[in-house]
Amino acid sequence: MWQTRKAWLKDWAAPVPEGLHTPLQTAEFEARQVGAPVSFTVDKAAGESYTIGQAGDGWQITGGEAGVLYGVYALAHGLKTGKIPQGRQAPFYALRMINAWDNMDGTVERGYAGRSMWFEGGAFSYDPARIRQLGRLLASVGINTLCVNNVNVHQPAQHLVDTLLPDLAAFAELLRPFGVRLMISIDFSLPLQYGLPTADPMDAAVAAWWADRARAVWQAIPDLAGFLVKADSEHRPGPNAYGRTHAEGANMLARAIAPYGGVLVWRAFVYNCMQDWRDTKTDRPCAAYDLYRPLDGQFDGNVILQVKHGPFDFQVREPLSPLLLGMKNTAMDIEFQLAQEYTGHQIDLYAMPPMWREVFDQMGKERVRAIAAVSNLGRDENWVGHPFAMLNLFAYGRFAWNPDEDAEDVIRQWVKMTYDMCPDDENSLMKLLLNSRTVYEKYTAPLGLCWMVRPGDHYGPSPYGYEFDAWGTYNRASRDAVGIDRTEKGTGYAAQYPAELKALYEDPAQCPDEMLLFFHRLPYDHIMRDGRTLIQRIYDDHFEGCEETERMRDALAALSLPEPDRTEVMERMEMQIANAREWRDIVNTFFHRFSGVDDAQGRKIFE
Amino acid sequence: MWQTRKAWLKDWAAPVPEGLHTPLQTAEFEARQVGAPVSFTVDKAAGESYTIGQAGDGWQITGGEAGVLYGVYALAHGLKTGKIPQGRQAPFYALRMINAWDNMDGTVERGYAGRSMWFEGGAFSYDPARIRQLGRLLASVGINTLCVNNVNVHQPAQHLVDTLLPDLAAFAELLRPFGVRLMISIDFSLPLQYGLPTADPMDAAVAAWWADRARAVWQAIPDLAGFLVKADSEHRPGPNAYGRTHAEGANMLARAIAPYGGVLVWRAFVYNCMQDWRDTKTDRPCAAYDLYRPLDGQFDGNVILQVKHGPFDFQVREPLSPLLLGMKNTAMDIEFQLAQEYTGHQIDLYAMPPMWREVFDQMGKERVRAIAAVSNLGRDENWVGHPFAMLNLFAYGRFAWNPDEDAEDVIRQWVKMTYDMCPDDENSLMKLLLNSRTVYEKYTAPLGLCWMVRPGDHYGPSPYGYEFDAWGTYNRASRDAVGIDRTEKGTGYAAQYPAELKALYEDPAQCPDEMLLFFHRLPYDHIMRDGRTLIQRIYDDHFEGCEETERMRDALAALSLPEPDRTEVMERMEMQIANAREWRDIVNTFFHRFSGVDDAQGRKIFE
Repeated sequence: MWQTRKAWLKDWAAPVPEGLHTPLQTAEFEARQVGAPVSFTVDKAAGESYTIGQAGDGWQITGGEAGVLYGVYALAHGLKTGKIPQGRQAPFYALRMINAWDNMDGTVERGYAGRSMWFEGGAFSYDPARIRQLGRLLASVGINTLCVNNVNVHQPAQHLVDTLLPDLAAFAELLRPFGVRLMISIDFSLPLQYGLPTADPMDAAVAAWWADRARAVWQAIPDLAGFLVKADSEHRPGPNAYGRTHAEGANMLARAIAPYGGVLVWRAFVYNCMQDWRDTKTDRPCAAYDLYRPLDGQFDGNVILQVKHGPFDFQVREPLSPLLLGMKNTAMDIEFQLAQEYTGHQIDLYAMPPMWREVFDQMGKERVRAIAAVSNLGRDENWVGHPFAMLNLFAYGRFAWNPDEDAEDVIRQWVKMTYDMCPDDENSLMKLLLNSRTVYEKYTAPLGLCWMVRPGDHYGPSPYGYEFDAWGTYNRASRDAVGIDRTEKGTGYAAQYPAELKALYEDPAQCPDEMLLFFHRLPYDHIMRDGRTLIQRIYDDHFEGCEETERMRDALAALSLPEPDRTEVMERMEMQIANAREWRDIVNTFFHRFSGVDDAQGRKIFE
Repeated sequence: MWQTRKAWLKDWAAPVPEGLHTPLQTAEFEARQVGAPVSFTVDKAAGESYTIGQAGDGWQITGGEAGVLYGVYALAHGLKTGKIPQGRQAPFYALRMINAWDNMDGTVERGYAGRSMWFEGGAFSYDPARIRQLGRLLASVGINTLCVNNVNVHQPAQHLVDTLLPDLAAFAELLRPFGVRLMISIDFSLPLQYGLPTADPMDAAVAAWWADRARAVWQAIPDLAGFLVKADSEHRPGPNAYGRTHAEGANMLARAIAPYGGVLVWRAFVYNCMQDWRDTKTDRPCAAYDLYRPLDGQFDGNVILQVKHGPFDFQVREPLSPLLLGMKNTAMDIEFQLAQEYTGHQIDLYAMPPMWREVFDQMGKERVRAIAAVSNLGRDENWVGHPFAMLNLFAYGRFAWNPDEDAEDVIRQWVKMTYDMCPDDENSLMKLLLNSRTVYEKYTAPLGLCWMVRPGDHYGPSPYGYEFDAWGTYNRASRDAVGIDRTEKGTGYAAQYPAELKALYEDPAQCPDEMLLFFHRLPYDHIMRDGRTLIQRIYDDHFEGCEETERMRDALAALSLPEPDRTEVMERMEMQIANAREWRDIVNTFFHRFSGVDDAQGRKIFE
């Protein structure tokens, strides 16, 4: 039987037994391992909320069915970290999703932790003990929804709504005792495969077909959370093929599943992925706002528009998606990516909480109704490839529960729960994790340029790799300047923001440094606020980023990490250093070849 | 039953029956379709040679066993083209090979004409009728050896020397009546898979193992032509792993197969494919000469060193490999690539005979003892994807038989045998085919720069796609200059040539234009012999190449081509035009961004 090797869950390294059917039963089982007596009072109306109180030499947890389970994990975490939550605890977002990009052939799109935990060879295929551990893992951080299949729905995953329903129901059964509901990604054009001549959402037969499918699906899995749809995006089918709006497409599906309480999560990741690089008018970051803003207010009540946090696609640095600020009458959720597609493949260190803190501070947590993250999980023994990548899953759960979390505090909780370290080591590791994003940002694409990654796998540098491609991802570096002017004089993207932000971004003198080349096309001798030239700032960042990576290695080596974490972490650190050097040298050489400007400090830039 | 749809073989569109066992029987069968009585006299000593004479109202063919078969095809060709060969005809090269890069999973590495004709699902899998047609196709152009599996030997092809021997023998049996012998690619490290602790060629047990294998192989297929080996190349195993030279590695294998008359074809395509782009001393074109020149004279008599025609890898324009001129005491064969890996994927037109004429004129046909070409064949109904790509297979056969062939004459033979055209159409098509290489060269990588193709698939432009990679394929374009100095002042590559050629290549004023940037690093304002600047020449070539492609389309459209050829050709022509436009615009923009120089004629260069 497969067993959790580690995580902050190490207090529960023992397997979860069969035979637990409700979150309360799970809570009672888990409570045995707390080390003190725990009693439960379930108040179904309390839902996911809980209150922890002392009761004699033990504890009393009051809450809803799932609430008591969250309570027992919170109690254990609190005993470990010294902070037991006081008063009633309730999640800010009711829908806290993990979107797994697992394919039924067993691969995971953008997966860096091994193959799928539940698919293989075109079928469900898993060790139930592992799935129970997964349920525990998700519940212990407060995640309540798992979308099981890739948003790019490859065969045979399209049959999750019919022939595979019994298998899906069995899988749902396994996760139900952990308060985790399933969701599935569906293919908008599915009716075509079942003999219908169209998938037009305004066609009555199509609507009836979906209504019939929904009935069958919810009959098999009455607590299914809903459907997730990627439509009219990167060659996925959608309502545009029939001249219908995305509101019309989404609402038709939403009405089919509404009778069962299902939500229809509709991804707003839509842009022209067949752009001609010669076209300087079309600007990919504008696409989602241009498409969806006019539809604001037209979506049904059970539709949630899923918006990536930035206007591109999980780049190292992007401004907040203007859609998240501009849609006033549409329920939205914000989508993060735990899988480190563009942020180091779970080889390079990249702790995400500081980014999320910035996002929520700028957006305001009330702007969205739910939250989603692309999974970083896989079949690797440590779940996530890099032992420290677990921090991002943990922290995501914390932010989904409470978007007011402090980034540093969350990271420290994870460190305390994962490792027994002396204070010096703990502080050293804290510093390293807190800085990891800044370091990664320094040695990769400079100042918000984005997309200098190698096409295809998205690891390592290729400054011109996407330059003449059809993805709308250009830096237009030349001997005189680099970047795209996204102000009113350029593509006009900045005008999608509220007036104050627009003014900030449009003025190169005010625009935050880290987004300067996202919004502006500037000459290499542009003077930054700190007096350096743009080109010198690029060189400095890349030399510093690489040096800091090397210092991270030294700091890591000095930590008393347990095995096998230590070996795994140090191996990946060496890979990160090699990666950082490639980025440093290639980006510096790239800009040196264009600009002809030498480094002011005389450091080595290759020919 | 599968049937040849067309080719110059259309006079033999009827299937080849079962039950033919010798080339003479095949010749007698084929003769029935000549349209006049043909009698045969076999003189075994005549081998592959033949003489065609008139005999009453029919024909008399005298020759060796295979010779009479070649004779009957030559007679038919001659009746069609009006030129019946006079006097005794004999091939200049005894070994005329097609190297198929077919994998046993059914894919063809760098194949552009569908899947493998004889492998599928990890096994031999074919329609015998199709293979007989293949035998006829190869024999009809004089090819006598087919290496059946990819030089990159993936499993299970490594078992062609043992468990798959009966299947290989059955396949050989099918091609024997066409005078076609098989060859197989082997894995140098194979003994390791059979329990030996080493594959060291100087180890007696290894030599004994190979001798034993050879005995079994030739017992099963007594006329097997030999083994083909890619060793110490692109991660393939080889003798270097054991500190042995390639002569030691090749000779050990050669001795194992010598008792059976086998030849050991050893590819000289060896270079460092893990180069650091920062390293400006290492220069990939130098690699083969540096490695093999010191070994000249050390190879056994039945070893043939297979050398690609250029020092890189089948680029659109390369100088002749200096190895072909420098190895005086080693049997070599020259390797061409019919598969249009870098020359348009059998979508873009690229007739190769003019290139081969140049190669043989410069090298001298006596420098090599044999000839090989990577196959452009696949399971497509027309064999080669683009109907006109068949020209390259046909012409290759002609040049392999007689390297003094005239390029234009060979192309005209193919046209006459393939299409019944009026003289105007024939001349129009001739012109188009003869110019196709020049046109392709104009719109792709300029002036011998090489490697501006998209990494991976090698179709379409990506001027910096390989720039920072590990393949040793750089152009080092900057704002001031482009290219690599390969003179004595640079990497020294030019010194590998005989003095006269070295002097020619080292002087930018004498170096042929089309190789100027292969040998030199030059500023954009370098003045070419015709008075244009380097940058203007690049722009001009790219605008012209694209315009000429469009004119080719018009010329093609005006031809009376039969269907389905016409549709296939025109469809591909539209794809070629799109490709030519991409190349034109991307290459021009790339150099405009670096140089800042506008086109003197004010034509559109995109930002």
